[in-house]
Amino acid sequence: MSKDLPKRDKDFSGWYTQVVNRAGLADYGPVKGTMVIKPYGFQLWDNIKESFDRMIKATGHVNAYFPLFIPKSFLAKEAEHVEGFAKECAVVTHTRLKSDDTHGIIVDPESKLEEEIIVRPTSETIIWSMYKKWIQSYRDLPVLINQWANVVRWEMRTRLFLRTSEFLWQEGHTAHESAEEAQEETLNILELYRKLSEDYLAVPVFTGIKTETEKFAGADKTYCIEAMMGDKRALQAGTSHNLGQNFAKAFDVTFQTRDNKEELVWATSWGVSTRLVGAVILTHGDDKGLRLPPRIAPIQVVIVPIFKDDKQVIKIKDYIDPIILALEKKNIRIHQDWSDRSPGYKFNEWEMKGVPLRIEVGMRDIDDSTLIVARRDTSEKIKLSHKDATNKIIDLLEEIQDSLFDQAKKFRDKNTYRVSSYDDLKRIIIEGGFVRCGWDGTDETEAKVKEETKATIRCIPMDEKPKDLLCVYSGNPAKHEVIYAKAY
Amino acid sequence: MSKDLPKRDKDFSGWYTQVVNRAGLADYGPVKGTMVIKPYGFQLWDNIKESFDRMIKATGHVNAYFPLFIPKSFLAKEAEHVEGFAKECAVVTHTRLKSDDTHGIIVDPESKLEEEIIVRPTSETIIWSMYKKWIQSYRDLPVLINQWANVVRWEMRTRLFLRTSEFLWQEGHTAHESAEEAQEETLNILELYRKLSEDYLAVPVFTGIKTETEKFAGADKTYCIEAMMGDKRALQAGTSHNLGQNFAKAFDVTFQTRDNKEELVWATSWGVSTRLVGAVILTHGDDKGLRLPPRIAPIQVVIVPIFKDDKQVIKIKDYIDPIILALEKKNIRIHQDWSDRSPGYKFNEWEMKGVPLRIEVGMRDIDDSTLIVARRDTSEKIKLSHKDATNKIIDLLEEIQDSLFDQAKKFRDKNTYRVSSYDDLKRIIIEGGFVRCGWDGTDETEAKVKEETKATIRCIPMDEKPKDLLCVYSGNPAKHEVIYAKAY
Repeated sequence: MSKDLPKRDKDFSGWYTQVVNRAGLADYGPVKGTMVIKPYGFQLWDNIKESFDRMIKATGHVNAYFPLFIPKSFLAKEAEHVEGFAKECAVVTHTRLKSDDTHGIIVDPESKLEEEIIVRPTSETIIWSMYKKWIQSYRDLPVLINQWANVVRWEMRTRLFLRTSEFLWQEGHTAHESAEEAQEETLNILELYRKLSEDYLAVPVFTGIKTETEKFAGADKTYCIEAMMGDKRALQAGTSHNLGQNFAKAFDVTFQTRDNKEELVWATSWGVSTRLVGAVILTHGDDKGLRLPPRIAPIQVVIVPIFKDDKQVIKIKDYIDPIILALEKKNIRIHQDWSDRSPGYKFNEWEMKGVPLRIEVGMRDIDDSTLIVARRDTSEKIKLSHKDATNKIIDLLEEIQDSLFDQAKKFRDKNTYRVSSYDDLKRIIIEGGFVRCGWDGTDETEAKVKEETKATIRCIPMDEKPKDLLCVYSGNPAKHEVIYAKAY
Repeated sequence: MSKDLPKRDKDFSGWYTQVVNRAGLADYGPVKGTMVIKPYGFQLWDNIKESFDRMIKATGHVNAYFPLFIPKSFLAKEAEHVEGFAKECAVVTHTRLKSDDTHGIIVDPESKLEEEIIVRPTSETIIWSMYKKWIQSYRDLPVLINQWANVVRWEMRTRLFLRTSEFLWQEGHTAHESAEEAQEETLNILELYRKLSEDYLAVPVFTGIKTETEKFAGADKTYCIEAMMGDKRALQAGTSHNLGQNFAKAFDVTFQTRDNKEELVWATSWGVSTRLVGAVILTHGDDKGLRLPPRIAPIQVVIVPIFKDDKQVIKIKDYIDPIILALEKKNIRIHQDWSDRSPGYKFNEWEMKGVPLRIEVGMRDIDDSTLIVARRDTSEKIKLSHKDATNKIIDLLEEIQDSLFDQAKKFRDKNTYRVSSYDDLKRIIIEGGFVRCGWDGTDETEAKVKEETKATIRCIPMDEKPKDLLCVYSGNPAKHEVIYAKAY
């Protein structure tokens, strides 16, 4: 099955497309750039979703649901916001179809809407129009609302999970009494994103601030997590925005302060999307297919029994059932593959699907009171005694989680360079990698480097040390230390 | 707080609107007929969702996600289907906005799509266009896929949760080898819907078949669960469709059978929506507000401490904490209300929000080593000893679940009449109630009764006994026993 998978180091992009397809993760829908998330891919997303949902609930956030449809006039209320999204909006203009003798089913021209409707590309505007109704006093604050939803951004060049016209995400929209509180929330969420990415997806990230050019349309400041993919390009994996009072101003949302004044409300918004599934594939995948971190893997352990006839099936089941029960009791997600395919076929298939551990069990193992366990991350095969298999398997899953993170982190660190000359920057960008260096803080430098190298400033890392650095482009004193890279 | 709530028996509709609003369940969005589901309402929906999600997973179904956008031509492929949905479609025609000097932000006419896009009103067409790619052989069957999604049906007269332009739902779409298997699936799901409604929502339902006039556009047969609301009107709470080979034909989805022939695939689809939240409100609510069944209540137990100063706060906390911990360990959802409102205000508020059990605890209770527990379903107050409060509370929650169901079932049964004359039918429809009687099976009778009484045939109940019955309208022998009622 894996015979024809393109090699990652020869054709990373072709490899990605094939893995998404063959692992049964997703497919394109009929409308340009839309995505069908297949059951295996959806379960992966759902596990990511549940992990993050627990985190935000534990920090006092609640879920709600706001409408898909936004009046066109709302989008226009925040000038930068509408500019940022105007070129990728799906616009609803009519509400009926009708039968036409010559053309078949047509849009009924009489159903034209007075005001066109935008399918949400993000929900700041509609949510702040509601917050205006809900927030009167400091007693109503903070509002810590999140929603899991679909959004639409009309894209010309699309790629499953990474850039699709419709995608699934969460978007948090919080309202606060003070600038300090909003900033604290923005950074708390950034930390949750780091945790989600590193502890669950096993994807190491740099946390940082976006430049003015790269920040969210309507934000004062955009913080982000940036990860390095297997081809050494960067992927923006999540953003947390301090919106200041911009949306409160646009929607006239004021509150009575503790000292009885009227003030505009302070806001944040933040999101991660199905793009995270792309990050997992691009970070951990190898030439055999996916490698999934156990914490989010739809199947953590697959059992491939090796048998010749029904008698052996019964014996293997008797032998393996107690282990399965014990693992299930510990909430381990197990799949047994009793199909009539050959063991070799099954090995390839479950490797393609990235299942962290494979248990092989046949008559010989029964005679030995052992099991063979194969690790997807290292391809190592380990013989376990039947007796303590359960605990060993649980330990191994934790080990794999850590090992995937360590591998990815080593790879990223090896390919992240501190440079002090523009020539080095250009060389590394061509060869592949992240460049940490000084930037003079000007839009011109940022634009020039982008134009000449196709690399963008991914972020100003939170741990920047700009002191004594020079801008590699202009030679002027650096205002910031930044990370340049080509990005998805 | 509950002072101004309209009385249910005077103004049921006004009462409903007020309860939705005051209990903090939902609000209208800015685009006509769209709904904002507020955190408390969303948690209620989420609990319903999770209950059903567990059921379908336990029966072998998996979740996936299909695109929001459907090409117009797809909808047209199944003739009845497009006719059923043509009049309520949101149509996307453009993909960009632009700035115009005289009109501000306008839709860019140059972004007009070649083929218009429909925002899904339901997903049969897009899903079967994908199944065509995925299904080749009987080995690929059955396909048992569900999705949780938003859908849009442009509605003129809307009502929060009951009828909104956008709503949330699950839609199952299964594919089978044979007519028998599809029929079995249709009925299995009907049974899960009954279970969800009766065992979780505590809403008793009749299961039955829709008439040809009332069935889903594109189905061979539509099964449904029908419930009686507090005003004795019917609410269709879920439908399960046997689609026969209609969509397989429309999208040319054939498979290689076990005996090597080519056959069209057999299909079902089925859905329940946020309308279920409406059913819960309309079934259980009383003049004080919501009454929520414990199994789906966002908060199962609210603690209202009665204190004068910080010293008392500490004492009460010490006293109550072990009980809270013990309940939380049993996964009971608890909320403590330490706000500075008066106890009376809090009692009213939590009654409005329908929390099944309220614990009142003050200094006197500590002295007695007791707690006062108030049941929302009966208003009964019970004194519990501190020692065995935890177990008693868990028992009480189960009792309340059962008691809400029993009350609703008694009410429904009392207001369901078997009649044999049209005069009786008309009288009961005016007074309020369900009418079980004979129907001659003709569209004419169905249409006439609807025209004259506004009652529709809700379903042919699964336990119908049409033998020896006459049609109350035509006097001809009954083909079916049916249930007539006015409906939401």
